[in-house]
Amino acid sequence: MTGRVLVTTHPFGEIDRDPIELLEKQGIPFTLNPVKRRLREQELAEMIGPYEALIAGTEPITEAVLGRSENLRLIARVGIGLDSVALVTARSRGIAVTYTPSAPSPAVAELAVAQMLALLRRTVTVDTEIRHGEWHRRIGRRLGRMTVGVIGAGRIGRLVIEHVKGWSARILANDLVRDPEFSRLSGFTWTDVETIYRDADIITLHVPLTSRTRGMIGARELAMMKPDAILINTARGEIVDEAALVAALRSRPGFSAALDVFEEEPYSGELITLSNCILSAHMGSATRDCRLLMELEAAQEVVRHFRGEPFAIPVPEEEYAIQAESHTRP
Amino acid sequence: MTGRVLVTTHPFGEIDRDPIELLEKQGIPFTLNPVKRRLREQELAEMIGPYEALIAGTEPITEAVLGRSENLRLIARVGIGLDSVALVTARSRGIAVTYTPSAPSPAVAELAVAQMLALLRRTVTVDTEIRHGEWHRRIGRRLGRMTVGVIGAGRIGRLVIEHVKGWSARILANDLVRDPEFSRLSGFTWTDVETIYRDADIITLHVPLTSRTRGMIGARELAMMKPDAILINTARGEIVDEAALVAALRSRPGFSAALDVFEEEPYSGELITLSNCILSAHMGSATRDCRLLMELEAAQEVVRHFRGEPFAIPVPEEEYAIQAESHTRP
Repeated sequence: MTGRVLVTTHPFGEIDRDPIELLEKQGIPFTLNPVKRRLREQELAEMIGPYEALIAGTEPITEAVLGRSENLRLIARVGIGLDSVALVTARSRGIAVTYTPSAPSPAVAELAVAQMLALLRRTVTVDTEIRHGEWHRRIGRRLGRMTVGVIGAGRIGRLVIEHVKGWSARILANDLVRDPEFSRLSGFTWTDVETIYRDADIITLHVPLTSRTRGMIGARELAMMKPDAILINTARGEIVDEAALVAALRSRPGFSAALDVFEEEPYSGELITLSNCILSAHMGSATRDCRLLMELEAAQEVVRHFRGEPFAIPVPEEEYAIQAESHTRP
Repeated sequence: MTGRVLVTTHPFGEIDRDPIELLEKQGIPFTLNPVKRRLREQELAEMIGPYEALIAGTEPITEAVLGRSENLRLIARVGIGLDSVALVTARSRGIAVTYTPSAPSPAVAELAVAQMLALLRRTVTVDTEIRHGEWHRRIGRRLGRMTVGVIGAGRIGRLVIEHVKGWSARILANDLVRDPEFSRLSGFTWTDVETIYRDADIITLHVPLTSRTRGMIGARELAMMKPDAILINTARGEIVDEAALVAALRSRPGFSAALDVFEEEPYSGELITLSNCILSAHMGSATRDCRLLMELEAAQEVVRHFRGEPFAIPVPEEEYAIQAESHTRP
């Protein structure tokens, strides 16, 4: 066993030592993220050289980084998004990539619904007001009376739809790929995204970050939304034009947003000055059960690599195709 | 038409003018709450003299107040709780009392679930942290993996159960009155309250305030709860011993609570200094749809009074019996 593993995702093995014990039991040496936050591209490039496998968070595993990864054979992503990994380059260098697409979904879906309910009732604002000696009985809105627009009806979006159906809300959904089986079964309305922007009281994003979704919510789309619309982003920061969002939140006090993801993380930008948004720290998948499952699944892929066994969930061909397509676009 | 109406509940007719227009159209003169917050006992006693009907919030309509209400013939409560009304005295003075027990339920149930989700993920704390330049990816818990204890399985408690079932949480329930039909149908476990205190990850209170529920959650009950239990109170402040709750929150950082109701409202006590609680401003019923329905239903009862028609929802006999019982107790 000559392999060495770099664990860049953070935290890892903190809620439950199982993933760490799995590596230890197999005698696989590993190094935990020394800075305890998302590594920057340059930091990762400087560290990656000696390692054979990466248990990866969302840090940028770019062409430049991979150019320094002489020994790397496996990137085991803890999570679902692959926008941070230069997949085509990885393949050309003979580096396998695995991910854990199902494990985080329930936690992300719950956070999306939690933030919808919080914004409908302005609970965060009211908590702050009471702590500052103010007592306003704000009249909110009820999820059961809302039209909820779900953009991206994959693993997470479908769970959001299931939760929201329990409140008898009206649901509009859209996806790049329309799955006729799903739409027939689930009792909601498939529609185009522009209808969602215009008609939904709540718009929640569950698409991956690709060249097609980058900046998909910009000034034009924000202007189409209702004055009191609620936007939820638990997907990727780059899907929303943050400057345009700040402008919309500033100019329309009835409009509100909950953001778990940002163009730059850790986030410390202008949104922190606005009271009609709720901010969280890219913790959509961060529940004990989902996080543990993600970490375990990634660690198991690393074990498989060192044992020479086939991977459980290698990244599918279509993900490579999406990235290849975006590279050939102008 | 000689009647005059005092509207003490606040706000009234703000989200929608329908309730006000209903009174105006009938030519019923009314006065809106001049202080725009819950009236104190003495304030109400000084105002109430000339009025024939009250559209009432949760202000104390005590024996002393009723002693000054020479002209009062109707108390139309906007809401479900009757702890604020001296029912037996009202009856002895020939004052009818109506209420709107169903209208607020969906909004209260939604707030309870909203606050469960918020505490499970610590979203309020994280929002504050980011606004202070801190970025911690907190690992939360997922509602679907929790045991939820619902104390009080009336209109609101049953809706909470329905919502939480959608997340496949394990549900324990208790009520003063056990409805065998309901427990057979609904797929959760009826149990005693002590089992709920000990076993539940989340405990949510949906009982009325009576002599039997006043102070039911005290130091002893709090000590039985798990170190990381979550307590939700959207019912009445007096059901929880607030001093004991403050002590529990101080000594057990993993324990948390969401409070919409307080012994004294507006609230400005010690809880505002604690980060493991979320505070809201007695706004369980405060969604546009529920609030409008409550206001309309109360205004319609006032119209019925002046027309000499029977009331739609007079307070039932059992509510008088509960209060009579508490008065004869030592």
